[in-house]
Amino acid sequence: MPYFSQSVQHIRSSEIRDLMKLATRPDVISFAGGMPNNDLFPIKEVDEIMQNLPAALKKTAFQYGPTAGYPPLIKSLKKYLKQKGLPVDTHRLMITTGSLQAINILGMEFIDPGDLVLTENPSFIGGIAVFKAFQAKLTGVPLQNDGIDLQVLQKIIQSEKPKMLYVIPNFHNPGGVIYSLQKRKALLDLLSGSGILLLEDDAYNELYFSAKAKKQTKPIMSLDTTDVEVVYTGSFSKILGPGFRLGWLLAPPSIYEKAQIIKQGIDACSPNFTQVIANEFMRQGYLSNYLDKIRIAYKQRRDQMAEALEKYMPKDVLWQKPEGGFYFWLKLPQNLDSTAILKDSIKKGAVFVTGKTFDPNGRQNNHMRLAFSNMQLNEIEPGIKIIADAIKSHMLVNS
Amino acid sequence: MPYFSQSVQHIRSSEIRDLMKLATRPDVISFAGGMPNNDLFPIKEVDEIMQNLPAALKKTAFQYGPTAGYPPLIKSLKKYLKQKGLPVDTHRLMITTGSLQAINILGMEFIDPGDLVLTENPSFIGGIAVFKAFQAKLTGVPLQNDGIDLQVLQKIIQSEKPKMLYVIPNFHNPGGVIYSLQKRKALLDLLSGSGILLLEDDAYNELYFSAKAKKQTKPIMSLDTTDVEVVYTGSFSKILGPGFRLGWLLAPPSIYEKAQIIKQGIDACSPNFTQVIANEFMRQGYLSNYLDKIRIAYKQRRDQMAEALEKYMPKDVLWQKPEGGFYFWLKLPQNLDSTAILKDSIKKGAVFVTGKTFDPNGRQNNHMRLAFSNMQLNEIEPGIKIIADAIKSHMLVNS
Repeated sequence: MPYFSQSVQHIRSSEIRDLMKLATRPDVISFAGGMPNNDLFPIKEVDEIMQNLPAALKKTAFQYGPTAGYPPLIKSLKKYLKQKGLPVDTHRLMITTGSLQAINILGMEFIDPGDLVLTENPSFIGGIAVFKAFQAKLTGVPLQNDGIDLQVLQKIIQSEKPKMLYVIPNFHNPGGVIYSLQKRKALLDLLSGSGILLLEDDAYNELYFSAKAKKQTKPIMSLDTTDVEVVYTGSFSKILGPGFRLGWLLAPPSIYEKAQIIKQGIDACSPNFTQVIANEFMRQGYLSNYLDKIRIAYKQRRDQMAEALEKYMPKDVLWQKPEGGFYFWLKLPQNLDSTAILKDSIKKGAVFVTGKTFDPNGRQNNHMRLAFSNMQLNEIEPGIKIIADAIKSHMLVNS
Repeated sequence: MPYFSQSVQHIRSSEIRDLMKLATRPDVISFAGGMPNNDLFPIKEVDEIMQNLPAALKKTAFQYGPTAGYPPLIKSLKKYLKQKGLPVDTHRLMITTGSLQAINILGMEFIDPGDLVLTENPSFIGGIAVFKAFQAKLTGVPLQNDGIDLQVLQKIIQSEKPKMLYVIPNFHNPGGVIYSLQKRKALLDLLSGSGILLLEDDAYNELYFSAKAKKQTKPIMSLDTTDVEVVYTGSFSKILGPGFRLGWLLAPPSIYEKAQIIKQGIDACSPNFTQVIANEFMRQGYLSNYLDKIRIAYKQRRDQMAEALEKYMPKDVLWQKPEGGFYFWLKLPQNLDSTAILKDSIKKGAVFVTGKTFDPNGRQNNHMRLAFSNMQLNEIEPGIKIIADAIKSHMLVNS
């Protein structure tokens, strides 16, 4: 049986697909989907852009574009990333069809069957799926409140030869945490000279809820990366809309060159139609105001969720209030199984994603991910009450 | 070195990339790019659609969508494909990010390294690239004026075990030919019971220039496919715009199921933004009028090109006037090398794509592909004169 499908078969259990279906049922309160809020998209702004788009740009929007991306968008994005301290002059920037495609391209470029790839545990399900599809051996390194567990990482590096380390330092999906600046630096020190490629996924960079958190979002790639090869990926999904299917990767020239050839064979180019709009969104200065607006909205949602959790969750359930992003990551007592809780919770009308979904080895299941990004505000409290009740009933059974 | 990049490295020579750059230089007349005409895109129509789009649909356009595609677009597309006699009720339809992604997904699903994949010779460069990327062994079967050479195909089938046959029956890229109905049926007869998957790429289906040609565009999948597994792919690139990055695949349920899992891991979903527009373009009835318009425009270009070729080409250069699509496929005398001619031609200001580019084994080079789709009308004659002069000077050298 062919290479890719052999492994990919086991990635998305029917359980998850059923869940996704439930998550869109109108009578179910969903904390499951990690998507932006439907009512927060910059529709008015994009309408304005479309109405004023010169005829020549419209033609460009309909046509094929260069494999590496629409050049004016690359220019705008470079300017934007430079402000974050990223090395856009020495490295090369490519537009991808969503940042999941960026991870895919790097998987194709680097992973041989059997290669060891390290991720945080928990980690992004899309990343895990890509690495499994390329038949990597996956090992999860525990995620702590300030980032990846460096002691565990060091032990692994000393005894094995990982090819790649995949991390999400800002407002982790699903972990909700942000890496401390100290840990970012220590991670680079640890990787220095190891030959391990660091893949930094920064999809949630802009979604900070405080000045302190903002300061902490400094990309690892913007620090001193002497003797560490880093590839940085980002996305328009959280700062414009997932429906645009636009992401990017910033990579050293040698990695970029091969990535471009691979992308040429995958989908020729990313949609020019949405690239033209995304560029105008940045170039005409819409982005900054829009981000100010959504940060306030998501912070409000985070606060309501925190309040509801404090009010309803039993004291043995633990979490850290996220400083940005979309997710609360709840730790249940060791003997509880979040799949069993989910089944009860669904019946009462609330869904979330089970912990093991995010474990690269699909085992650990006493966690749950609760996204606060895309339900109605007034659904948060009743939804959390349903889940808390389901947890409590399982604690009784297990006590 | 990893699986994918190892093979993909050799696919696009720097020659082709340089050519693509030249092809966009304003002072060069380009017969190279196989893209629709910049001045023919349905810009007014899409403007109207955008201006009247209900708020709820706009939200949908910005959000993630189902992996298999935006459901209303699938519905519209099913209706459209049903009119072509395609089995949309027994098979399943998936939206892909361009039809190149559809070919990629099938490559991932079916091709193991070393598997034998058959294509026509010449064949679409994107298809060849995908098959090589998955380390298929490629064999090209000669393309005749009425379709693939069945005698050669039969011999191969008798002695080897091909996994897949990839064909472009309508207005072939680059061959320009259309399969006769008789050959379509005979191909199915030959494949019946062989276990070889038939991949039918129908990107140019709508671009016929006569009622006779229209009748002949009947998809192979719409015929009696007893005991032949067929997957059908199509594209919005030629009937709306490549910048939308939308294509589709129609497949038996078992193939579709795995394809959906693979697509989930590649880019999660195709752009909802362009899917919503594409659906309105079909649903509101714009497509049919638009196709009438572009068929006339491309036919006019084909006619001008045919006239210029008749006028300037030496008599030893052979071609068949295409009944649709974008391409003339010129056969030069055996001893001429189209790369050498291209070098001269570029200096004088006209570019095309060399024959060996489309040979799955990259050898045969006494052909050239001339696309008539995207230059100014008044550039066709002077451009053809340049190329004809370059050919003549090489015929002198070689005689």
